[in-house]
Amino acid sequence: MLGARTQGGWRALRRCASLPRAVRLRVREALGAREAADAVRVQGWVRSVRSQKEVLFLHINDGSSLEHLQVVANPSLENRVLTFGSAVEVQGKLVKSPHRKQNMELQAETIRVVGPCDIWSFPLKMKERHPLEYVRQFPHLRCRNNTLGSLLRIRSEATAAIHSFFQDNGYVHIHTPIITSNDCEGAGELFQIEASSEVRESAEKTHFFNVPAFLTVSGQLHLEVMAGAFTHVFTFGPTFRAENSQSRRHLAEFYMVEAELSFTESLQDIMQVMEDLFKTVTSTVLSRCPHDVELFHKYVAPAQKTKDRLEQILKNKFVTISYSEAVEILKQASQTFTFKPEWGCDLQTEHEKYLVKHCGEIPVFVINYPYDLKPFYMRDNEDGPQHTVAAVDLLVPGIGELCGGSLREERLPFLESRLQRLGLTDAYQWYLDLRKFGSVPHGGFGMGFERYLQYILGVDNIKDVIPFPRFSHSCLL
Amino acid sequence: MLGARTQGGWRALRRCASLPRAVRLRVREALGAREAADAVRVQGWVRSVRSQKEVLFLHINDGSSLEHLQVVANPSLENRVLTFGSAVEVQGKLVKSPHRKQNMELQAETIRVVGPCDIWSFPLKMKERHPLEYVRQFPHLRCRNNTLGSLLRIRSEATAAIHSFFQDNGYVHIHTPIITSNDCEGAGELFQIEASSEVRESAEKTHFFNVPAFLTVSGQLHLEVMAGAFTHVFTFGPTFRAENSQSRRHLAEFYMVEAELSFTESLQDIMQVMEDLFKTVTSTVLSRCPHDVELFHKYVAPAQKTKDRLEQILKNKFVTISYSEAVEILKQASQTFTFKPEWGCDLQTEHEKYLVKHCGEIPVFVINYPYDLKPFYMRDNEDGPQHTVAAVDLLVPGIGELCGGSLREERLPFLESRLQRLGLTDAYQWYLDLRKFGSVPHGGFGMGFERYLQYILGVDNIKDVIPFPRFSHSCLL
Repeated sequence: MLGARTQGGWRALRRCASLPRAVRLRVREALGAREAADAVRVQGWVRSVRSQKEVLFLHINDGSSLEHLQVVANPSLENRVLTFGSAVEVQGKLVKSPHRKQNMELQAETIRVVGPCDIWSFPLKMKERHPLEYVRQFPHLRCRNNTLGSLLRIRSEATAAIHSFFQDNGYVHIHTPIITSNDCEGAGELFQIEASSEVRESAEKTHFFNVPAFLTVSGQLHLEVMAGAFTHVFTFGPTFRAENSQSRRHLAEFYMVEAELSFTESLQDIMQVMEDLFKTVTSTVLSRCPHDVELFHKYVAPAQKTKDRLEQILKNKFVTISYSEAVEILKQASQTFTFKPEWGCDLQTEHEKYLVKHCGEIPVFVINYPYDLKPFYMRDNEDGPQHTVAAVDLLVPGIGELCGGSLREERLPFLESRLQRLGLTDAYQWYLDLRKFGSVPHGGFGMGFERYLQYILGVDNIKDVIPFPRFSHSCLL
Repeated sequence: MLGARTQGGWRALRRCASLPRAVRLRVREALGAREAADAVRVQGWVRSVRSQKEVLFLHINDGSSLEHLQVVANPSLENRVLTFGSAVEVQGKLVKSPHRKQNMELQAETIRVVGPCDIWSFPLKMKERHPLEYVRQFPHLRCRNNTLGSLLRIRSEATAAIHSFFQDNGYVHIHTPIITSNDCEGAGELFQIEASSEVRESAEKTHFFNVPAFLTVSGQLHLEVMAGAFTHVFTFGPTFRAENSQSRRHLAEFYMVEAELSFTESLQDIMQVMEDLFKTVTSTVLSRCPHDVELFHKYVAPAQKTKDRLEQILKNKFVTISYSEAVEILKQASQTFTFKPEWGCDLQTEHEKYLVKHCGEIPVFVINYPYDLKPFYMRDNEDGPQHTVAAVDLLVPGIGELCGGSLREERLPFLESRLQRLGLTDAYQWYLDLRKFGSVPHGGFGMGFERYLQYILGVDNIKDVIPFPRFSHSCLL
């Protein structure tokens, strides 16, 4: 008997029925060897109920895949509380389905409603394709929607693939701290934290940590600490920006994958890892969640032809242009920009869009940015007096910047003079120390995980690729 | 030629030299097939320099393992800046070592000091076994110490093993939020967050999220949301307590592994997953990092015989006693306790210690705690009017509580009346919703990751098992 305790839902069920896991979607062929499984007990949530004169059809789902299991029952098993959204336990026989749409179905002997669902107040409706904006209002229920279910499975597989990629390549995983006393690159607005008792009690307070403490905006500097003892390190965790924006591109809490490589003197090495990471993780996700990914490509963003584009991208090498070349391309564009392209100025969204389009709507590395545009830790290319630094941004269609990276300034005198000019010498004494004791050429990058998911799935709004979006004026649950 | 770009350090080096990765520590045997590798380029940090009349010995390390690579060179290659702590690049020939202590050595042709190290101000000293308290003062340099290096590799392997365990068992990984507007169980002191501009600007401020926002103390309630759509979910991320303690047991920022299982009616199922998780991850760590683990068992906590104990524990089933039995055991103890054991009172550290000892210094599950001691979401056992709940704590020697879990109250009327009595009905309307729409019996648990590492390695102070410890009055870097 296949028990209820089996872990992993349908997938496991099929595994139990001696079906190879890798071909779990080809149950029909495999069932040839074993036509039926007796006394199966299956649990899940009802996704549809269709009552006919002779037969009652249920579709139930347990979250292990996008597929529903069809349950065929005698109409006498119908029941007032057997509705859409209810949780059920069905006992019966697993048989090859006569229908083309599914591989197998369950002939029910008993159906028990474990938890009823008040369909009148339940905000999700049977067989309705709710818009993403609609389900976003119900953060505690939206995971029961097909699209969000698929998203969460894809997100889970991508997370696992990222960990595997780095582990397979000899990287040491580091939990860089979430609470930090350094305000990093001074990047945008920070969140500050205090013990809640202190917030209540006094205006002139002493800090819990003695010093002001913030939520991290990047694990880079802490990874650089580790790059002084390990040649390859990575982190994958939450980062924070208190940006006052409700745009489709910003979250207050989002995830970053960051890596740092020691004994690396070339920006190309860093870019190679960025490209390998993107391609390996994407291939894994495409092969492990084909149906979930297909849902997005077919129904969420059909116009974007994301699937065809992805396949092309995985086959070809990413393009590289220098910042200076990028500015030339923009200057020669027939298009009129709101911000006039000019060497020494930041690339704006409109510029990034144009560059990506110009290169054929594929990922584009832009390298060697002006020295004055970039943070203090980036390595001077010495192609002129403080002219450019060894920085790289990876731009992708529809998103803009997906990754950012650089070689780090490992030379003590260069770093000292730059920090001095910024008046940061005292605050970064520990960072200077890293250059005093066995400093090595090194570099690294960060990839925004939500932007990555948006890109491969064609999701317009970043709030739809994270389980619990946090942004200005909104922190539900 | 084995290039410098090879990822993964020594390990990879050996892989390149056609050595199977799984037996990477048996290089001697494997080298039989291929006696030498020419023109190898190796990079790392100098761990010792020993100059003899005829020969110069270096030990260098690149962080990929605890082992150093011995470099043998002509004394003419010696150099003023070739010191302990410096970073070097060595070119030469990889040959079978004549010494028993290592499997292979590098005959240097050239040695280049990539980054010198000012040994007079460098706080780590050659061949000295610095106490953990000493290196703790240098959060930016302590990873270069052998013990911390081993710890970080073990932590990385354990992290990967946890992800694999859940993925292999069909769990969906969920990034539960770090910032939350609910104060969860009211568990201890919370950290509150604000945009730093708001902290500066006004006392009577509007909140960034409109509502007060806190750092999470547990992902459980958010996992329960997901348990309404997936049968198995887990999260592994940072959690926070603003506890005003500098004890060896507390951190303000620490990591928790949490899992939630749907369609689970028995606490035993939850306990089985806790036990499987512990055993699988520990076996993986022991087999993947034998030398790193040995360092701890031999030098950090030799008296504790952690190794023998672990092997015993992995072979045997964990013990289970009920809270009521525990109280009886304590009452019959010959020992006098500071807190008198009494049914209905919390188990104190001294009690936990006694129970674990009483059971033979092995992990002990204590189940079925008094109703009034536990949070609102735990399931009433109905063995008397609000008598006990289906809660479990896993106690382990030297640590106390390693895991805590429970069945959750899935029955709407039970939960409603409990929340009403606590005056929490409004705040937890969303949580009640989960019971209105397809509620299922479910339960889960959390394991403190740092406590886990302390336990398997025999590390006394929790600050020594996390890369960047945060606790009251201290947030370095």
